[in-house]
Amino acid sequence: MPHERIRFAPLRDKVTDPASAARHVADGSNLFVSGFSPVGYPKLIPAEVAKRALAGEHLRINLYAGASTGEDLDDVLAEAGVVVWRRPYMAAKAMRQRINRGEILFKDDHLSFTSAQVRSGGLGSVDVAVVEALAINEKGHLIPTMSVGNTPTFVRQADKIIIEMTDACPMDLEGIHDIFIPEDPPYRMPIPIYRASDRIGKPYIEMDPHKVVAIVYSQERDHCPIFPPPDQGAHDIAAHILDFVEHEIKAGRMPKGLPWQSGVGDVANAVLLGFLENDFFHGLDLYSEVLQDAVLDLLDLGKVRHGSGSALTFSTRGQDRFIKELYRYKERVVLRPVEISNSPEVIRRLGVLSVNTALEIDIYGHVNSTHLWGSELMNGIGGSGDFVRNAALSFMVTPATGKGGKISRIVPMVTHVDHSEHSVDVVVTEFGLADLRNLSPRQAARAIIDNCAAPAYRDLLSDYLARATRQGGHEPHILEEVFSFHQRFLQTGDMRPA
Amino acid sequence: MPHERIRFAPLRDKVTDPASAARHVADGSNLFVSGFSPVGYPKLIPAEVAKRALAGEHLRINLYAGASTGEDLDDVLAEAGVVVWRRPYMAAKAMRQRINRGEILFKDDHLSFTSAQVRSGGLGSVDVAVVEALAINEKGHLIPTMSVGNTPTFVRQADKIIIEMTDACPMDLEGIHDIFIPEDPPYRMPIPIYRASDRIGKPYIEMDPHKVVAIVYSQERDHCPIFPPPDQGAHDIAAHILDFVEHEIKAGRMPKGLPWQSGVGDVANAVLLGFLENDFFHGLDLYSEVLQDAVLDLLDLGKVRHGSGSALTFSTRGQDRFIKELYRYKERVVLRPVEISNSPEVIRRLGVLSVNTALEIDIYGHVNSTHLWGSELMNGIGGSGDFVRNAALSFMVTPATGKGGKISRIVPMVTHVDHSEHSVDVVVTEFGLADLRNLSPRQAARAIIDNCAAPAYRDLLSDYLARATRQGGHEPHILEEVFSFHQRFLQTGDMRPA
Repeated sequence: MPHERIRFAPLRDKVTDPASAARHVADGSNLFVSGFSPVGYPKLIPAEVAKRALAGEHLRINLYAGASTGEDLDDVLAEAGVVVWRRPYMAAKAMRQRINRGEILFKDDHLSFTSAQVRSGGLGSVDVAVVEALAINEKGHLIPTMSVGNTPTFVRQADKIIIEMTDACPMDLEGIHDIFIPEDPPYRMPIPIYRASDRIGKPYIEMDPHKVVAIVYSQERDHCPIFPPPDQGAHDIAAHILDFVEHEIKAGRMPKGLPWQSGVGDVANAVLLGFLENDFFHGLDLYSEVLQDAVLDLLDLGKVRHGSGSALTFSTRGQDRFIKELYRYKERVVLRPVEISNSPEVIRRLGVLSVNTALEIDIYGHVNSTHLWGSELMNGIGGSGDFVRNAALSFMVTPATGKGGKISRIVPMVTHVDHSEHSVDVVVTEFGLADLRNLSPRQAARAIIDNCAAPAYRDLLSDYLARATRQGGHEPHILEEVFSFHQRFLQTGDMRPA
Repeated sequence: MPHERIRFAPLRDKVTDPASAARHVADGSNLFVSGFSPVGYPKLIPAEVAKRALAGEHLRINLYAGASTGEDLDDVLAEAGVVVWRRPYMAAKAMRQRINRGEILFKDDHLSFTSAQVRSGGLGSVDVAVVEALAINEKGHLIPTMSVGNTPTFVRQADKIIIEMTDACPMDLEGIHDIFIPEDPPYRMPIPIYRASDRIGKPYIEMDPHKVVAIVYSQERDHCPIFPPPDQGAHDIAAHILDFVEHEIKAGRMPKGLPWQSGVGDVANAVLLGFLENDFFHGLDLYSEVLQDAVLDLLDLGKVRHGSGSALTFSTRGQDRFIKELYRYKERVVLRPVEISNSPEVIRRLGVLSVNTALEIDIYGHVNSTHLWGSELMNGIGGSGDFVRNAALSFMVTPATGKGGKISRIVPMVTHVDHSEHSVDVVVTEFGLADLRNLSPRQAARAIIDNCAAPAYRDLLSDYLARATRQGGHEPHILEEVFSFHQRFLQTGDMRPA
């Protein structure tokens, strides 16, 4: 790569090879990497760090990112036995296994808090920041790539900075980012975003060039999975949500024009695709954490006017499409630090309509987003808590069953609560929707069982509810039986009795 | 009472007797009352409404307030069989019993949301608002008494307004209130509070005088319990918290001057009293939901510079003291609508240090604030979710045991989750404190058991943790045993094995 992407000339002599650069990551370091969802993370330095450990060097680090990264970062380091701590979120197989075995320490954080924790010193010193960059500008500041995450704070707080300069993204991406680091309490002022499209910062991350110890050139691109087209169930979930919001707007209980947030994954992507088949919604804004492939279609058709997020989690195909017509998309997309994309202040001010995916939901509306069988970490809460708690209306969605019907995702009590009944407004499965906002717990249970549970589980759930209700209480439960569905599955491989 | 408190002369002919005024509350009405905690609620009209029902009139209403009210409102109406729905919070015995029996419908809401729900029409029409008032000003606007709660929105949205004009509060209270109703999304602007003491609104509630259908004079005063002096346990909890915060500030991990919030109840009151014995803290601000008696001592000694809340929940003795020296206190206290006192935007901006009471806490830091044995409603979540989720640092406090040691308040898994591990920072009992911010779940369990559980329960909890950990998982649990402590108590009357 020519030096033209290092516009600040004094840094050009920092260019080196990945192995040499990785030498700055010492045993015992706190390593803070760019990246949010599997985009924008460094790809060469982690491999070199792993290589040293596999060659026998004693190398143990604490690893912090914006959220998840790619497997070529998280799993490569996890498999090399390098990682002591990982925060604040992950979604990689080897990392997950080791966390569940207790070999890697993990704490499941709300993503909106991490940057402030780092600035307060709560996570210790930022020994080394390894960040992917599009370029370094004339003043020595950093232009990120397809995500922002916590990178602005990592760069500000770092002792040493290593840069992976990639040419997988075109230089025209410059200008898509809006970097704003709020002051911390007690001197914080309002975050001045009044519309999802507002820009309040600078298009680059301020960086002290003296802290840059190495720059490596990279041709590595991000690898995100291509989502399969939504299945009928995801399609139905999307239709229930859009019909419901249309109905609320027409009934005068909700203004038009509230922005949407849609979580990560194929059901969330399907909800966005659902707008394509809907005639009511036009010119929407997205105020979300990640923007997925569906957003490109929505922008093309004018369904979405503007998209705000912390990462462009496009599939390889979506990246090509985005980059090819960047001139059309760039003015309508903004990438923000995650403490801004997920800011409770902004989410509540804008009145976001949020759609997030659950692992399981109980009859009273409590949601498990993170732990299978109460114990096994899946990925983490990510930003769902930031949105669910502060949204004007929060939808929690899940297919009604899993494992070919052997698991009901509607259960008497969830085995781990990430979002409580107090914050969950509407539960949705392919069978229908339960609007809990004006229901008592007993009424909520009735609605969730009747509207959302799979037919094969309705009698079982109704029987539980009836017997629990006879025992009494505002939110009736039979403590001996709350996890009977789960226990049956663990014993027989099916939540349904034989 | 002379007419001088009705400064807007055209309303003077609305003065009537309570029985006549109460006639405006019709069968099937949505009744919205002033009041937040047991202060500032109407006391005469509810009794008249109950009287009619007890005399045989068919009278069923939905009852909404700021939070709880006094027993002479909630229990009088509950016992008369008048209440269909009650929201968003309550703390009265007869009301609680009927809710737990399923005779009265209740949904446990975050208090910061109710006003916006009312404005959106989500709770239906505001047929009648019954509000306690200090006076009506020259322009026909309403001056509230010892609390604000949701009254500004109730008054704005009401079809009919009935006023209980009390002379139990001196006219000098005028000016203590700061009334600000934010615009609703998508047109909301930042809530411009940058310091706990900032005033952003008007000292009265805007009211259309044409909607006033009746005014009654009252001499009724608020009756709040006098808290007993803190016991040794509450004293120790307070000391742990203050020592910890002092240590964090001295270590440079926390700035000085963050405002405090302290929940309702005697432990919370004890924490505030703890400042009196502490030499490190001076000139603090409180950004809280309610202000209790301890605040008067703290103001007197300069420990607290300014207190902000939605209610002055003083004991009768505290009221007398406050009123007697109102001239000294008034400039240093502000009463706000609960959507402002509990605003997530403001709480996070100011960096509030929050202290809230739990019913029980589990070894991984999940908190039950509302439901005994998973089923029986105690009071409700109130504003604790608004604070715990957004505080710069959230303490959850509980005595380590209850019922003379027969109940451990530290358990393997709580039977109802109101605040999840993701939002709870520090767990405190009289035995000590567990700072969970940088601990994995297994480490958190170790810290909570060792530092916070009562010694008589530590081996039991450690045994559970050890066996669960052998089964594996990020947050190890044995589903068959998670509620074994609770089940043992329900069977034997003691959580400890014989």
